[in-house]
Amino acid sequence: MTDRLRMRPATTPAMLAVFDDDATIAHALAFEGALAKAQAAEGVISDELAVAIVDACMTVVINSAKLAEEAALAGTLAIPLVTRLRAALDGDAGKAVHKGATSQDVADTVLMMQTRRATDLVLLDLDRIVDALGRLALRHAETPAVGRTLLQDALPVAFGLRIAHWAASVADAAQRLRRDVEDHARIQLGGAAGARAGLDGAGLAIASIMAGDLGLAVSEPWHARRIGIAAIGTSLAIATGAIGKMARDIALLSQNTVGEAREPAVAGRGGSSAMAHKRNPTGCQVALSAALRVPGLAATLLVGLPQEEERGLGGWQAEGPVLADLFLLAAGAADAMASVAEGLEIDEDAIARNLCDADIGTDIGESGAIVRALVARDEG
Amino acid sequence: MTDRLRMRPATTPAMLAVFDDDATIAHALAFEGALAKAQAAEGVISDELAVAIVDACMTVVINSAKLAEEAALAGTLAIPLVTRLRAALDGDAGKAVHKGATSQDVADTVLMMQTRRATDLVLLDLDRIVDALGRLALRHAETPAVGRTLLQDALPVAFGLRIAHWAASVADAAQRLRRDVEDHARIQLGGAAGARAGLDGAGLAIASIMAGDLGLAVSEPWHARRIGIAAIGTSLAIATGAIGKMARDIALLSQNTVGEAREPAVAGRGGSSAMAHKRNPTGCQVALSAALRVPGLAATLLVGLPQEEERGLGGWQAEGPVLADLFLLAAGAADAMASVAEGLEIDEDAIARNLCDADIGTDIGESGAIVRALVARDEG
Amino acid sequence: MTDRLRMRPATTPAMLAVFDDDATIAHALAFEGALAKAQAAEGVISDELAVAIVDACMTVVINSAKLAEEAALAGTLAIPLVTRLRAALDGDAGKAVHKGATSQDVADTVLMMQTRRATDLVLLDLDRIVDALGRLALRHAETPAVGRTLLQDALPVAFGLRIAHWAASVADAAQRLRRDVEDHARIQLGGAAGARAGLDGAGLAIASIMAGDLGLAVSEPWHARRIGIAAIGTSLAIATGAIGKMARDIALLSQNTVGEAREPAVAGRGGSSAMAHKRNPTGCQVALSAALRVPGLAATLLVGLPQEEERGLGGWQAEGPVLADLFLLAAGAADAMASVAEGLEIDEDAIARNLCDADIGTDIGESGAIVRALVARDEG
Amino acid sequence: MTDRLRMRPATTPAMLAVFDDDATIAHALAFEGALAKAQAAEGVISDELAVAIVDACMTVVINSAKLAEEAALAGTLAIPLVTRLRAALDGDAGKAVHKGATSQDVADTVLMMQTRRATDLVLLDLDRIVDALGRLALRHAETPAVGRTLLQDALPVAFGLRIAHWAASVADAAQRLRRDVEDHARIQLGGAAGARAGLDGAGLAIASIMAGDLGLAVSEPWHARRIGIAAIGTSLAIATGAIGKMARDIALLSQNTVGEAREPAVAGRGGSSAMAHKRNPTGCQVALSAALRVPGLAATLLVGLPQEEERGLGGWQAEGPVLADLFLLAAGAADAMASVAEGLEIDEDAIARNLCDADIGTDIGESGAIVRALVARDEG
Repeated sequence: MTDRLRMRPATTPAMLAVFDDDATIAHALAFEGALAKAQAAEGVISDELAVAIVDACMTVVINSAKLAEEAALAGTLAIPLVTRLRAALDGDAGKAVHKGATSQDVADTVLMMQTRRATDLVLLDLDRIVDALGRLALRHAETPAVGRTLLQDALPVAFGLRIAHWAASVADAAQRLRRDVEDHARIQLGGAAGARAGLDGAGLAIASIMAGDLGLAVSEPWHARRIGIAAIGTSLAIATGAIGKMARDIALLSQNTVGEAREPAVAGRGGSSAMAHKRNPTGCQVALSAALRVPGLAATLLVGLPQEEERGLGGWQAEGPVLADLFLLAAGAADAMASVAEGLEIDEDAIARNLCDADIGTDIGESGAIVRALVARDEG
Repeated sequence: MTDRLRMRPATTPAMLAVFDDDATIAHALAFEGALAKAQAAEGVISDELAVAIVDACMTVVINSAKLAEEAALAGTLAIPLVTRLRAALDGDAGKAVHKGATSQDVADTVLMMQTRRATDLVLLDLDRIVDALGRLALRHAETPAVGRTLLQDALPVAFGLRIAHWAASVADAAQRLRRDVEDHARIQLGGAAGARAGLDGAGLAIASIMAGDLGLAVSEPWHARRIGIAAIGTSLAIATGAIGKMARDIALLSQNTVGEAREPAVAGRGGSSAMAHKRNPTGCQVALSAALRVPGLAATLLVGLPQEEERGLGGWQAEGPVLADLFLLAAGAADAMASVAEGLEIDEDAIARNLCDADIGTDIGESGAIVRALVARDEG
Repeated sequence: MTDRLRMRPATTPAMLAVFDDDATIAHALAFEGALAKAQAAEGVISDELAVAIVDACMTVVINSAKLAEEAALAGTLAIPLVTRLRAALDGDAGKAVHKGATSQDVADTVLMMQTRRATDLVLLDLDRIVDALGRLALRHAETPAVGRTLLQDALPVAFGLRIAHWAASVADAAQRLRRDVEDHARIQLGGAAGARAGLDGAGLAIASIMAGDLGLAVSEPWHARRIGIAAIGTSLAIATGAIGKMARDIALLSQNTVGEAREPAVAGRGGSSAMAHKRNPTGCQVALSAALRVPGLAATLLVGLPQEEERGLGGWQAEGPVLADLFLLAAGAADAMASVAEGLEIDEDAIARNLCDADIGTDIGESGAIVRALVARDEG
Repeated sequence: MTDRLRMRPATTPAMLAVFDDDATIAHALAFEGALAKAQAAEGVISDELAVAIVDACMTVVINSAKLAEEAALAGTLAIPLVTRLRAALDGDAGKAVHKGATSQDVADTVLMMQTRRATDLVLLDLDRIVDALGRLALRHAETPAVGRTLLQDALPVAFGLRIAHWAASVADAAQRLRRDVEDHARIQLGGAAGARAGLDGAGLAIASIMAGDLGLAVSEPWHARRIGIAAIGTSLAIATGAIGKMARDIALLSQNTVGEAREPAVAGRGGSSAMAHKRNPTGCQVALSAALRVPGLAATLLVGLPQEEERGLGGWQAEGPVLADLFLLAAGAADAMASVAEGLEIDEDAIARNLCDADIGTDIGESGAIVRALVARDEG
């Protein structure tokens, strides 16, 4: 039972792997192992128990389908997972597993581990886009072309000016995403009600050790402070929108009556089941589809902010799948348009012909200077 | 590579099966088979070719993971699917496969076939909710209870009045959904640009036969008229919101300081990984989480309405996965709250005690008459 | 202190008038007057008191700015309004004002009275669009033109086929809106907690009389059942999206390199502050802007469905302004595109030239039959 | 014709004044004046002409209602405004008005001037909230109270811990908003197609002078790069959500059966038109209503990102009113909850009683340390 026909067109295999069941289980086990190790370091449990728990976390065999069923019933992944760990351990070690932690500690920490990996993937493609577009923009920094406003011919601009704007938006969006993930990809360890009870007063120390171990920032518990997730989610939406802007323009430039640019030919991509002659802007399609879908997902994270008391009912449980969907869509868009940016075919004859037809002269004003300023800024 | 930990908590196994890869492939093959049969009936292709095609549709073996990869690259499921069918057939039959159809014909028709099945599942649970609540409402039609407005004690109402409102909203939403699916779950057959070229002038007749075969309504092509999908999607969102209303109230009634109602105990459900004594309103959690997530998805369908020309770029490609998500979430909410409705535990002592503490008398006005009118209406 | 520069470009003066302060106050006074009359008819108050109250409702002078300030502080319009009515009446009549009613009764009933008037305005323009497009579609039912999919030239269609689809979507959306308003534009009369206490058992009779008086449907109280408002709101969003589809296509057809259609010239419309030669598709701009804005508003109504208990905190208070915004935007879009539809300039030479350039033949398949079927259906 | 009954309950008079017609016209005239002055400084026009233009900008009398009508027809404010300025000047000065600028330059710059003023207002109230909550949190840093998760009693926390989380979220959100406005509240000056043609090569210098004059940051033109507006809009939505979280909790704590906290009594606020004894949490209502409405508006800005070419059709025209709505709602929420935070009534007896009833002990773990860390961080 797989859902790849529904999900794969919108994203990349690498991003699917970040959020699939195996990754989720591996991260959850890493959390439980790191918790035990840190508790041993702080003397909350013995080294012996910690070794046994860490060992169990590495060796336990989990049937993910069965786990998913039980997790769905329980309303949380941690309950059936901890049950399995305890079954793999003897009494004392079993009792020490998950000590002082709660389900949301696991869920939130796993989500932030996935967020780190997912962000790295997205940023890689955003950087590819910015680099490729920067080169293109400079190459066409003085090429007069029709500038179009409200979908009407307006006055000339450098063809590279439009490209420099695409690059600048993607670069700004990448920087915003990077900063939000650095600020908010944090360990979650608060225990049942967020007071770090049951950790013998060593909660902060334990959280710090775990954070280092799991590659996350240290933090006070944030069970009921969800603006970090909303920040990351909206930054992903903005990045996807910036990619969508570039896709929109390339699709318009690819129209047969315009013909100034088009996507590179890729084997197996952009065909039509009914018309062999067609070459569809499939990369743009993926990006525009993503740009259409992310706002509703980002809004969902915003709607969920006013959650109840120490842990909300329904609100935080919605965040994991929604943030995953945002990463899946952003990755699909970034990957598709990185290929487009790196292979974009530009037809200078068509550009010149359209400009001549428009009969609007060739004064591109300060286009070149603006292009160079934008590209220099992105590189800086 | 599965994603059940991310998706299963929000939905039911049955609904996942409606939209999984196997179902999608089966429906797509059914489309191609029905097309061939109908074309034979209208004399567009020979009976012999149709028999060969239908046979291939039933026997072709498809590796769904590989198909998904190729479909993602091509930007459409139909291209690699038709390639496989053609490979399984000889020259003439291979050429006759998919004749006069286009990728979107397949995609839209498959989505509507899934919509029909998915709607049946959701309506079954909505009906269970309405029935169970109707009985409860009548039982408590004259039980005075605290009415609460703006989260403050207000004046008395019958305890059953609140329940009757839940039922009426769910009943209205179910009726709306049923009607929208009846109106809009239609065959799609328009060919490359929606003109039904290449069908020898028999397009309408072929579409009619196929519609009957596939359990859908007949229709003119609707490639660029997407309001049917938006209608179904918003009706699903309204139904989920109606369920969410009931879940919100039950969660509030279940608070320890209120204690007037709570979810039935279900083995393996509602526990806490940190606190053995807790009984969480997990059914309400599922429903509230769904109610939080559906508006953004419904909005996505609305955003996509102004699609370009004969077939949009990015817009319609977003609809399939979004409509599927709406069904998945609606099903999860409906299933969870059907169980809650059928087993809701009501504490009459707590109701009476809270009313007494509120010191607002016991005049429930016309509560009983309103309850009976609402329940009678839902049954009508 | 007015906000017309912010609001007027998106809507019509007539729709602004439906929702402005004067109209709101007039409807609220009509509610209080109708309530008194109905109560007298049912013997709940004396005819004398009713006459005095009705008279006060017609003669009281209200400073809307001051009322708005007090209403904002009180959290409800009814409180300062009723205070003013009581001040205008002597003791017994003053006490009889608003008897058995609550603030939400006034707010919801006023909103439904405005909904009726606003719907009439929108439907008038939707009908204009359907009529004008139907004529155009028939006129071009056999004119071969380039069909375009994924923003690429595909195969020929009749130029009128695209237009017939626009018309059919708008007609379907209009029918949906009409039905939802008929179903849900209902009187609200439930009193403090929705039990119709304080009406001497005559609540249903009083509500029926009032409904007739105010031009609304009779109903049980629906304080906590908000799906009617969500239904109307989503139908408005669908109608606006259907108009947006038409605007998207006309804007694309108006591109200088395409030139197949353009908006009629209107004095004072579509100019540029920088380029005297330009003719911008300003009607399409208004419609596309509206189509962009309505989904978030419709989603807001969906998000608000799970409101608390007998009257929610924050949820229902959001609905009035959001539904008003939906009507304002829908009206702006409908009005703008009705003018465009009625004056659309179609350039048959450009259509023929583009088709020739595309080199895709002239086979428009069953276009003509589909056009005629769609237009006949809309007229039916 | 005013709309205060619809808009005022959601916002403050001060914020309405930032975005009303008078402010918009004043800012637009300031733009035209600053443009003339800067052009004179750079020798693009004579000092004499600049003086005449600046004088006209200060003395021209504008009928805002008539201007709004014409602006709605033209699709832009600049066209009728510039017409009026020209009418007030003689030929040469008239020709020099608005030189090298385009409508969107005016609209975007005005919006950013309003954004600066609006942000100052919002931040003032956010700071009030953080200060007041910080004091409260420290005061109750060691007070044991019932911690509640999934709306069920869980384990004890310090009463101040919940408050410290509210404060930390609001502080984080304020910082984010401040940074986004500093980054993105920039001058817009690009001319017809964004190339700064017609400015004699002095475009950057002119833009720099204008930016200083109008209190904005310098920038390359950003007509088609809209992520700054989306950034500000989503940060406003996050801030409103953070306020909404606090409102949700206070509303839950104010329930009659809980009674641990309630809003301060304010004359004229929180009453009921039907129940004199009630005290409604009206501040929370305003904040929750705002938190419900902002996500859809933020999503609208995200949806609009993929705008067309050098200036979009429909997309950017939607941003001004939507961003204004976001500020109006954020201001309403921030103002209402600043008053609530400063006067919050906390009932220590009820807190102790509920904890005793819950029978969960009094171990608040590291609550106090977490409170102090969060408050110290907010002050830092």
